[in-house]
Amino acid sequence: MKLQLALDRMSIHEAVAIAKEAEPYIDWLEIGTSLIKEFGMDSLRQIRRAFPDLYLVADIKTFDNAAYEFNLCFDNGADAATVMAAAPEETLAICRTTASSRGKRCIYDLLNVPASKAAALTQERDAVVCFHVGKDQQQSIGKSAAGADWLAIDRSNSLPPGHGAAVAVAGGITLGNARAISFMKPDIVIVGSAITKAADPRQAAEALKQTLVGPIKVKGE
Amino acid sequence: MKLQLALDRMSIHEAVAIAKEAEPYIDWLEIGTSLIKEFGMDSLRQIRRAFPDLYLVADIKTFDNAAYEFNLCFDNGADAATVMAAAPEETLAICRTTASSRGKRCIYDLLNVPASKAAALTQERDAVVCFHVGKDQQQSIGKSAAGADWLAIDRSNSLPPGHGAAVAVAGGITLGNARAISFMKPDIVIVGSAITKAADPRQAAEALKQTLVGPIKVKGE
Repeated sequence: MKLQLALDRMSIHEAVAIAKEAEPYIDWLEIGTSLIKEFGMDSLRQIRRAFPDLYLVADIKTFDNAAYEFNLCFDNGADAATVMAAAPEETLAICRTTASSRGKRCIYDLLNVPASKAAALTQERDAVVCFHVGKDQQQSIGKSAAGADWLAIDRSNSLPPGHGAAVAVAGGITLGNARAISFMKPDIVIVGSAITKAADPRQAAEALKQTLVGPIKVKGE
Repeated sequence: MKLQLALDRMSIHEAVAIAKEAEPYIDWLEIGTSLIKEFGMDSLRQIRRAFPDLYLVADIKTFDNAAYEFNLCFDNGADAATVMAAAPEETLAICRTTASSRGKRCIYDLLNVPASKAAALTQERDAVVCFHVGKDQQQSIGKSAAGADWLAIDRSNSLPPGHGAAVAVAGGITLGNARAISFMKPDIVIVGSAITKAADPRQAAEALKQTLVGPIKVKGE
């Protein structure tokens, strides 16, 4: 189970500083949509420069103009990029082939799509599907990923081992609900504010990682 | 009928140069999604500096984190910002109230939403709804806004004059189909490549404007 740290609503300088703190405990690092929209590809380039070997996810939330946006992310250092599953089928197909032709990953953000759409994309090999409760939904109706619909998707019955998309889950995940999340065995757990706004981001990342996977061996030790 | 020029897939420098050419014939200027994602808010700030008085639309395509993204656009010089109508209701509501509290406009991008959703948003006063055939759809299936579903929305029967959203239309609009578009009386016609990739962007903007509204008086003459 991977821990992905999402960096949002801060300067690039702050993003790098927080990620440096959390680095020993995270697997994937996400350049959040707000960083991309505020600072453009400079956010990706600077974070790639600071972390030459870390797996970087560009949360670009593509909805159209897919080849241009995905190539922009990959040209600037991303290993994976996100597309909204609510986008037209043509756009999803272009994201898939662009990522595949460059040896990169396509991540479908399932925010606000019907369960049938989510289930269909979950069958897709080599992709990542992200069950996502949005920030606005969290604040307006108190929902979090711990109670979200993705729990209803039963991967074990529908697909042989090693087939189908990897499953990520995002939205309001904290130390308090991380154990409940871990019982559902997602492949990737995405955490933002619970690390970035913690008094001690390093300690918060460590506690989350341990809650998700049990006692851990720190990278490089 | 307003002509909105959309600037996409170019440097900020090129965007300013092309917009200067087209300026006498355009009403609204759009900082395209690709400019925002490539250069961040710097695109908006530089274009505002070059055009202190022009009405600027930030095509930020918000899908979540609505207050942050909309305020970011308004703080950096936008008069209007876009949200995907496919986003959660909570997000649409926050976009609406954020725009309204700042005396700005919220534009709903109807790309890939069902007709029922489009019709509901079209009832909303003070908003703009944008019937949009995406770039990826244009290229994959040869669709353009000239044949799009928005023509089926009959505003005249459902709303008294002065009520309901203003209607914008976007996607593959050229000099060749502009007259057909104009017969349907949208409030705003959004054109990108047909001006930005023209050999003479000024002439292309002039021809489009004349086709849409008939003989025109150039601003400032």
